[in-house]
Amino acid sequence: MNMQQAISQPTSVNGLDVQAAFDTVDAIKADNGLAKFEFRARNAWISGGTNRSTIRDFYGAGREDESRTEAFEFTNGEPPILLGNNEGANPVEFLLHALAGCVTTTLVLHAAVRGITINELSTELEGELDARGLLGLDESVSPGYEQIRIRMHIVADCSDDTLDDLLAFTRTHSPVCNTVCRPVPVMIERVKA
Amino acid sequence: MNMQQAISQPTSVNGLDVQAAFDTVDAIKADNGLAKFEFRARNAWISGGTNRSTIRDFYGAGREDESRTEAFEFTNGEPPILLGNNEGANPVEFLLHALAGCVTTTLVLHAAVRGITINELSTELEGELDARGLLGLDESVSPGYEQIRIRMHIVADCSDDTLDDLLAFTRTHSPVCNTVCRPVPVMIERVKA
Repeated sequence: MNMQQAISQPTSVNGLDVQAAFDTVDAIKADNGLAKFEFRARNAWISGGTNRSTIRDFYGAGREDESRTEAFEFTNGEPPILLGNNEGANPVEFLLHALAGCVTTTLVLHAAVRGITINELSTELEGELDARGLLGLDESVSPGYEQIRIRMHIVADCSDDTLDDLLAFTRTHSPVCNTVCRPVPVMIERVKA
Repeated sequence: MNMQQAISQPTSVNGLDVQAAFDTVDAIKADNGLAKFEFRARNAWISGGTNRSTIRDFYGAGREDESRTEAFEFTNGEPPILLGNNEGANPVEFLLHALAGCVTTTLVLHAAVRGITINELSTELEGELDARGLLGLDESVSPGYEQIRIRMHIVADCSDDTLDDLLAFTRTHSPVCNTVCRPVPVMIERVKA
């Protein structure tokens, strides 16, 4: 590798292989179908408010992914006030975890492709909901989150204005944030085993 | 306990304390403020597409919950095709886990209060998204899920019609399902550490 190559091919920014990111963008520009992903989860009820998901396979970049040798497993539970015994975090808390992670990864990715180095990034999330919705006590009360607030602490090698631009872009391009902000259809079909 | 009490106070249906559920409903009817919950998560970026959430405290039923002696921890990661090394499931997969769990728990709870015994319940979820949204390659492409399909297998001691009523009620009363189906505002504020 000569000096020119060394300068023009930074391999890692923010722990991400930027060249691989640009290669992915080029491949998708040449074939939009490569951008289509299908993610999946399987869940089995255990008892009460306890159930467990297994997550392994997905489709993306034109093929079934085979990179995972074992499935991830996650257990939903409920605290005593919600009739459980803290067998796991509960589903609305896992939603906050998904949102925190997606906003973080989206920001770190777009920082990397813009050449911005992130030194620190942490978030705190809060979401309010009114259990009358879940319980069906008042049909004017939405069962889901009323709103979700994210406080983000970032230290990066750029100006505050550049950081605010990056944050605004992140908010509108994070897949989980967009799924929460936008009405996304959920279809439930009852099937034979 | 006499026979009358034994018949009128079934303690557990589907692994849930039904009397406690009715007591909760009565308490909320007497004071709507007890239905207000605030759930929270804290997340710290590690590197690339890896970050970790801690979840412990929340507010509900008029007070700060103190039932959890330790925090739950969950790690987001990404598969190699998305520039990671499978350090964990990724955020859009955790969203499916949250949705699966919430639909399941909502159904099991409302079955219990209706006196329906669930014998088996499992779900398979699929959600499509187009990575051009995340990458900002086409602003007409939404970054989030286009739709999410849930196939649910249930065995219960009731008719198919009763089960379909329960499922329709579940779809509109599950907090995570409602958060996905409805536009929920997400505010991101940048703060000093």
